[in-house]
Amino acid sequence: MTFEKLAVDPNSKARAGKITTDHGTIETPIFMPVGTRATVKGVHQRELKEEINPDIILGNTYHLYLRPGTDILEKAGGLHKFMNWDRNILTDSGGFQVYSLSANRKIKENGVKFKSHIDGSTHLFTPEGVMDIQRKIGADIIMAFDECTPYPCDYRYAKRSMHMTHRWLDRCVKRINETDPLYGHNQTLFPIVQGSTYKDLREQSAEYIANVGAEGNAIGGLSVGEPDDEMYAMTEHVNSILPEDKPRYLMGVGTPVNLLENIALGVDMFDCVMPTRNARNGMLFTANGFINIKNKKWEDNFSAIDENAYTWVDTAYSKAYLRHLFSVKELLGLQIASIHNLGFYLWLMREARQKIIDGTFRTWKEQMVKNMNTRL
Amino acid sequence: MTFEKLAVDPNSKARAGKITTDHGTIETPIFMPVGTRATVKGVHQRELKEEINPDIILGNTYHLYLRPGTDILEKAGGLHKFMNWDRNILTDSGGFQVYSLSANRKIKENGVKFKSHIDGSTHLFTPEGVMDIQRKIGADIIMAFDECTPYPCDYRYAKRSMHMTHRWLDRCVKRINETDPLYGHNQTLFPIVQGSTYKDLREQSAEYIANVGAEGNAIGGLSVGEPDDEMYAMTEHVNSILPEDKPRYLMGVGTPVNLLENIALGVDMFDCVMPTRNARNGMLFTANGFINIKNKKWEDNFSAIDENAYTWVDTAYSKAYLRHLFSVKELLGLQIASIHNLGFYLWLMREARQKIIDGTFRTWKEQMVKNMNTRL
Repeated sequence: MTFEKLAVDPNSKARAGKITTDHGTIETPIFMPVGTRATVKGVHQRELKEEINPDIILGNTYHLYLRPGTDILEKAGGLHKFMNWDRNILTDSGGFQVYSLSANRKIKENGVKFKSHIDGSTHLFTPEGVMDIQRKIGADIIMAFDECTPYPCDYRYAKRSMHMTHRWLDRCVKRINETDPLYGHNQTLFPIVQGSTYKDLREQSAEYIANVGAEGNAIGGLSVGEPDDEMYAMTEHVNSILPEDKPRYLMGVGTPVNLLENIALGVDMFDCVMPTRNARNGMLFTANGFINIKNKKWEDNFSAIDENAYTWVDTAYSKAYLRHLFSVKELLGLQIASIHNLGFYLWLMREARQKIIDGTFRTWKEQMVKNMNTRL
Repeated sequence: MTFEKLAVDPNSKARAGKITTDHGTIETPIFMPVGTRATVKGVHQRELKEEINPDIILGNTYHLYLRPGTDILEKAGGLHKFMNWDRNILTDSGGFQVYSLSANRKIKENGVKFKSHIDGSTHLFTPEGVMDIQRKIGADIIMAFDECTPYPCDYRYAKRSMHMTHRWLDRCVKRINETDPLYGHNQTLFPIVQGSTYKDLREQSAEYIANVGAEGNAIGGLSVGEPDDEMYAMTEHVNSILPEDKPRYLMGVGTPVNLLENIALGVDMFDCVMPTRNARNGMLFTANGFINIKNKKWEDNFSAIDENAYTWVDTAYSKAYLRHLFSVKELLGLQIASIHNLGFYLWLMREARQKIIDGTFRTWKEQMVKNMNTRL
């Protein structure tokens, strides 16, 4: 994997870049649609590629390990072939998912023992095991196994956890170095900065992670309930330590406004379930604000879903029609809203990139943040 | 509306034809995908048009009347514009739906009083009212308001009901003649033959309907639980009376085998929820038999869903992948299976048409019936 920094905004830390892997190039800043269980919910792979057009998507190790399982994925020749997606894939390490299981998991130095949310069966994730699983999945970018701390988090717990995450990282690096990719394309490991919302811990962690010398670095443990300002403060501080010449991935973030603010702080990569999850609840993101399409006010509004036409659905269907689909709970409503929201997120990233290249990112961002906070 | 009979199979009563309306031509035999509530479940209008490619789809008066309601549809400029579908639409009359409400409806000479399945509110469907609703929906083909009798049905009830359906038909014809289409395209009324599974009643009804001189005729009250042989016997008898030079529409039928058998008896048009409903339950129809994709045997079968490639999904995704989507209950599974099944149904109709034109329908049909009855 290589990363080329193409432009930096003169009035912020925003960067435009290009990552190159065996599955092609990823223009940054990038938002990665979440394909938890080998599918971006409600969206065909062809639509994802041709309409939404991300250079990379994300899969979830925890979910894929449980179903279809690594045996099936190996037989299929990896996740790319299994789901018919020939661009880049990043897999998270399962750290966040097992952390979410709360009562049904036990974290020890060796790893995390957890109970499957499906059948209650017991499983153990270790740093080594999770590297092996991600080898079998065949992701282009593999995430280190970490503990994602909750918010708020006791300082002592956060510190202890951070150190364990660092020890786990060493084990991940060792395992990756001892093993080979299975499907003929390279895989690269991104370590994850932790440290909750404590500046000194974030600093220590960022230094530790920077020293690993990975091809890209991630910031985890944010967007777990803390106020936006705390998130931005942490991102800013961590980015001042992480190497300039490597892509920075802020995990699990966020709203369109969160994306632009973090781009301004030097983040290059994002993922979040928000565009698809909110879509399924009838919430649409647009450049002028957000819409609750279930609202009666759209009942007889026959204008296009979005005149900006990020994807074909935006002008193929009207607001009144989409509102009808939600009011009668039709599948097509979920499909349309998901495509729209993802199309908007990817458009926002392409637009941000162009503004960075043009040197006008900062003022554009401030206007967009204002617009996008409006309820339509 | 015009109907041109282009070919008749020398060894059966199967016909190939062409219907022409203001929304274009309909090549027969045709299967009409069911778009109950202004959407064919799980299928985008673009996929419907470009991949499945039916010349006509069906909407349900009962459902559209309740939601979004005729006010919204009128403001939208009719159902075609509301849902963005520029080919033909046929609407049923709501007769079948109100009949299905059983306990929540009361049938009288004037019409049917029923309670909405949504909020329990009371509504009245009369022949005149249903014509007005279908004018507002703007369907190209409007169905007469009828009573669909259950199976089995007491002879006296079937006879009384049939006569009422005939009287209702007269009221429908009168109302249609007194009113005009609202959106600049013509609308034509199809009357419906009833008479349960009684040959003499079916004969009387077919004669009554034939005398109306409509541009097309329908056969209702079948596929409600009777054995296939009784259905075929009724269709055959009715078709011997209905005019040769008008299209014949067998309502609510059926399996792929039912379609071919009824085509052999001279039926030109079909509709059924089966391809989409069964798709959502994981049942796939193919030219070689049917598949329960949830079955564990497909878990590691990485072959294409269907090598015949009726639509792009058939070769874009594998059986193992589709099985995975069903096992984790992902939306995309429903979407893929729906497109596949509809693609197959429409392919079957196009193939039947070509065989009729070639004069080889009968032997082809017998082989296909054998194949399609196989469980794969």
